[in-house]
Amino acid sequence: MRLPDFRLMSKTPDVQNHSPIHAFHLTRVGVTGVTRPVLIKRPKKTVTLIPTFSVFVDLPAEKKGSHMSRDIEVVDEIVDHADKATSLESLCARMARSLLDRHEYAAYAEVSAEAKYFLERSAPSGRKTNEEYGIIAKASVWRGKALRKTVGVEVMGMTACPCAMETARELMRTKYPDVKFDGIPIITHNQRNRCKLMVESDEKHEIEADDLIQIAENSLSSPTYEVLKRQDEGAVVMMAHHSPKFVEDVVRDMLRGVLEKYKNLPDDVVVTAQSEAEESIHKHNAFAERVTTLKELKE
Amino acid sequence: MRLPDFRLMSKTPDVQNHSPIHAFHLTRVGVTGVTRPVLIKRPKKTVTLIPTFSVFVDLPAEKKGSHMSRDIEVVDEIVDHADKATSLESLCARMARSLLDRHEYAAYAEVSAEAKYFLERSAPSGRKTNEEYGIIAKASVWRGKALRKTVGVEVMGMTACPCAMETARELMRTKYPDVKFDGIPIITHNQRNRCKLMVESDEKHEIEADDLIQIAENSLSSPTYEVLKRQDEGAVVMMAHHSPKFVEDVVRDMLRGVLEKYKNLPDDVVVTAQSEAEESIHKHNAFAERVTTLKELKE
Amino acid sequence: MRLPDFRLMSKTPDVQNHSPIHAFHLTRVGVTGVTRPVLIKRPKKTVTLIPTFSVFVDLPAEKKGSHMSRDIEVVDEIVDHADKATSLESLCARMARSLLDRHEYAAYAEVSAEAKYFLERSAPSGRKTNEEYGIIAKASVWRGKALRKTVGVEVMGMTACPCAMETARELMRTKYPDVKFDGIPIITHNQRNRCKLMVESDEKHEIEADDLIQIAENSLSSPTYEVLKRQDEGAVVMMAHHSPKFVEDVVRDMLRGVLEKYKNLPDDVVVTAQSEAEESIHKHNAFAERVTTLKELKE
Amino acid sequence: MRLPDFRLMSKTPDVQNHSPIHAFHLTRVGVTGVTRPVLIKRPKKTVTLIPTFSVFVDLPAEKKGSHMSRDIEVVDEIVDHADKATSLESLCARMARSLLDRHEYAAYAEVSAEAKYFLERSAPSGRKTNEEYGIIAKASVWRGKALRKTVGVEVMGMTACPCAMETARELMRTKYPDVKFDGIPIITHNQRNRCKLMVESDEKHEIEADDLIQIAENSLSSPTYEVLKRQDEGAVVMMAHHSPKFVEDVVRDMLRGVLEKYKNLPDDVVVTAQSEAEESIHKHNAFAERVTTLKELKE
Repeated sequence: MRLPDFRLMSKTPDVQNHSPIHAFHLTRVGVTGVTRPVLIKRPKKTVTLIPTFSVFVDLPAEKKGSHMSRDIEVVDEIVDHADKATSLESLCARMARSLLDRHEYAAYAEVSAEAKYFLERSAPSGRKTNEEYGIIAKASVWRGKALRKTVGVEVMGMTACPCAMETARELMRTKYPDVKFDGIPIITHNQRNRCKLMVESDEKHEIEADDLIQIAENSLSSPTYEVLKRQDEGAVVMMAHHSPKFVEDVVRDMLRGVLEKYKNLPDDVVVTAQSEAEESIHKHNAFAERVTTLKELKE
Repeated sequence: MRLPDFRLMSKTPDVQNHSPIHAFHLTRVGVTGVTRPVLIKRPKKTVTLIPTFSVFVDLPAEKKGSHMSRDIEVVDEIVDHADKATSLESLCARMARSLLDRHEYAAYAEVSAEAKYFLERSAPSGRKTNEEYGIIAKASVWRGKALRKTVGVEVMGMTACPCAMETARELMRTKYPDVKFDGIPIITHNQRNRCKLMVESDEKHEIEADDLIQIAENSLSSPTYEVLKRQDEGAVVMMAHHSPKFVEDVVRDMLRGVLEKYKNLPDDVVVTAQSEAEESIHKHNAFAERVTTLKELKE
Repeated sequence: MRLPDFRLMSKTPDVQNHSPIHAFHLTRVGVTGVTRPVLIKRPKKTVTLIPTFSVFVDLPAEKKGSHMSRDIEVVDEIVDHADKATSLESLCARMARSLLDRHEYAAYAEVSAEAKYFLERSAPSGRKTNEEYGIIAKASVWRGKALRKTVGVEVMGMTACPCAMETARELMRTKYPDVKFDGIPIITHNQRNRCKLMVESDEKHEIEADDLIQIAENSLSSPTYEVLKRQDEGAVVMMAHHSPKFVEDVVRDMLRGVLEKYKNLPDDVVVTAQSEAEESIHKHNAFAERVTTLKELKE
Repeated sequence: MRLPDFRLMSKTPDVQNHSPIHAFHLTRVGVTGVTRPVLIKRPKKTVTLIPTFSVFVDLPAEKKGSHMSRDIEVVDEIVDHADKATSLESLCARMARSLLDRHEYAAYAEVSAEAKYFLERSAPSGRKTNEEYGIIAKASVWRGKALRKTVGVEVMGMTACPCAMETARELMRTKYPDVKFDGIPIITHNQRNRCKLMVESDEKHEIEADDLIQIAENSLSSPTYEVLKRQDEGAVVMMAHHSPKFVEDVVRDMLRGVLEKYKNLPDDVVVTAQSEAEESIHKHNAFAERVTTLKELKE
């Protein structure tokens, strides 16, 4: 098809600037599912993330539409000039500020992003492995106010059930009366556990995703590893059964870890800790969560 | 394997009642992904839903674990005796109350559910079709307080873009100068739009999912239908292009519909309206949302 | 919008019957994601399934388009008159035959469906539980040939790793030299295992989904249950550790079960058996599969 | 927990080498969901992909288990030394060969991978945009035979329905008798269309994913773009309505494109072309597919 010469167009209508039929203010208007590769400068290396962004501003009651192509322009410009970005949340913060510049009618801007993230870990024998995590970032800002940022992580590990272990200990005693089962790790159900740990704060505070991953991983019965030769596999199984945990324990241990690491941060820091066990003895999951502030945690 | 006789067990340990190492209160503890078929009595028929439930209580700081098997027992008992249930949200409400009875240590209980839901509709020619919707229900209650329930729906329909229509009108005028394009529907991009409309209120108020579906469906450029013979297909295309809408328009029209339908409900009713267009000209989605109270909407 | 009177339309064009620009035959043309509630008459009860159907015919090289609204009409008619259907695969078979009637130009028709399915089970103590499974059905037919049907199931259960158990036994011996670890179940990693078992045959042979579920469930280290009070939980853990299995073992045990149950079926019956373990010590899954015929299995 | 000294272990059992109880050969045994970032050297740049791999070998009837940790070692070694890899399928091919080296008992190896992939495109006005695609790769090899590789792509674009356009033309003529509607693009439903195009061949033939993306994108009513300022948006809408297409047309145009581009490749090349339209007037999708060989296409 041969397109008409755009320059001949008598006008390009701006329907977004019309008045809406029903003049309600809108909380969030924008785009979701915007995926772009982006380079992040970390202390010792540059990593490529492929995050998916959601980008929103609010919309005044008297304006029919938001200019959403500006949302994508903001993402592209800041992704293209991300060479100085040291974290996904700082990218989101830059986008949120740029949104307020571009959408002069908006009072609020919000950008969130999620990406896969990889770290080198050491299995019990010291063998190096590559482990996959999730990284979550968010920035939200009201015009004229301080920006709030969220740094979050998703960590998959293993939990072994402390309750079933004690019941199994009794059953084993009954069935094998000659064996001494006191004080040793006993069979129980264990399974994949997916943790989420998120910290929301003012922008000036340093919250490092790697530290949150460490806190979450330490809170599980055992981390998991991609490559486990036979002795490492045995060692992980022993570690997990030496430290059986409910999802409730995992959340509380994460809260303890956050409190220790960030005790000097202000009271208004918001902490969300979740643990979900994909129960090996049930078809449903077990879940525990705490949503709180540092102020409450310190009490 | 021959199991030992349970009656010989000297004790069945109750690890959940132990003291946790770190005594933090937990916001929500329970089970997710619990799917059960359930019969619901509607005014003119009994329908089978297959909802997936999430079931939570809070957990005091001094208690190591929640007794989660009770959560499943609550679901099963109430699903098995659902013969008088007239809605998914009333099932959730019964479960939430039962959770507080069973978990004597809990101060809060919350049950949510999502299910596919089907209604007969009429295409423009009057032909009957079976259409799929989503139904969302939630009940949350603090011990000694009034229960709050949420009724929500998910509706898929069609939006046609009003902005691209006006730009295309100018382009068509330039390319086909002999044709009169004023006042007629012009080509534009159109696409699937997924709406969500949720109303949270006290339990005593009647909020009917079918009404919310009607409000959402009326707010789109056109409903969609599973069977459209040729003339019906043309009619749907014409309807949609006679009523081009942004996601912003869809949300505002839903808010207007809620305000008209529920103007006599109290100010503290919470309304969430979302519209997401799976843009046919982009690989990302367009999204708009309002979260508000009836009080704000009435202003 | 007031629609024009359809009767005034001078013609309703049949673009599907035009000649395509590039005259290639098409293997499968139709609709996907068609979800409908349907009643199935089982021996002792009537159950409601909410399957999602995919419906295809082939398309001759000289025909531009398939009349897809007929596909939906076929689904709706047969779902509406499903009162005599005794299985999901018999529904699919009826739809496939009806497709060949409606699409006179087609030489091939294929219908597949997937649904959640629920059975009552007994936990070790005899307590009744409601368990969720997946049911898969397919019918494919060439005009003038015998129809082939597939009956399949998805079963979630538990596997305990036999290799890690033996490594852990050695580690435990080293760490606790005073305990006798011979011949008793030892700690290992265990996890959710998702099995799939599918049998394709001529239509006249009776393949019962409930039997395939039984075969798959028996092939795991242990079935899982939605409600397990403390002693049942211990019993399931003990059963699983008395019967540790690789994914390879699960597949082979399913093949053995199929061979025993269906040894009198003809050689051309096709069997697919899969087992996927959501490894509790890794972030990836372990997978095993056999695709074969009864003829090969009998050898 | 303090682990025992691995060196004190009297033996590390090799349960995989035991004999299975039921000696059936297994078709595919291995790992799924293995995600790793990987650098690929393209003609003008180096790109980071984050593919998810599935890795399988077959397993002889007399061997209880496959050594799956070797599968992960193969992935990690080849990903770590991918500096000379020029495509995802060449990575898969190297892994498949390495699997046969490591699993001396296997006769067959198979590796597949899927990743998001990004290309710069030009909107109608020449404006640069970043577009997301999917890339699919597979290598399979029988010991002593030539390796077969698959190169595939997933492309999202737009289709406008040719049938509804002609029906709408008649309806518009009836409703607006004074307007000349002949020969101009008329309103119709349009929507997201997801295409898949895959080519399987011997390893020596050059099949370039970028070319397959180009063929698929040219086969749609219009490509889609992430950033479209107003005139570009109008141009895309006009292009799509000048080239209305069924899913059947999209598949046939891809086949024509493959035949033109790869006419010199051997007859045994296997081509799979799929198009799925997320219908804006229905809640279900429309789907078309051809699975064939170059030999058949040439006829």
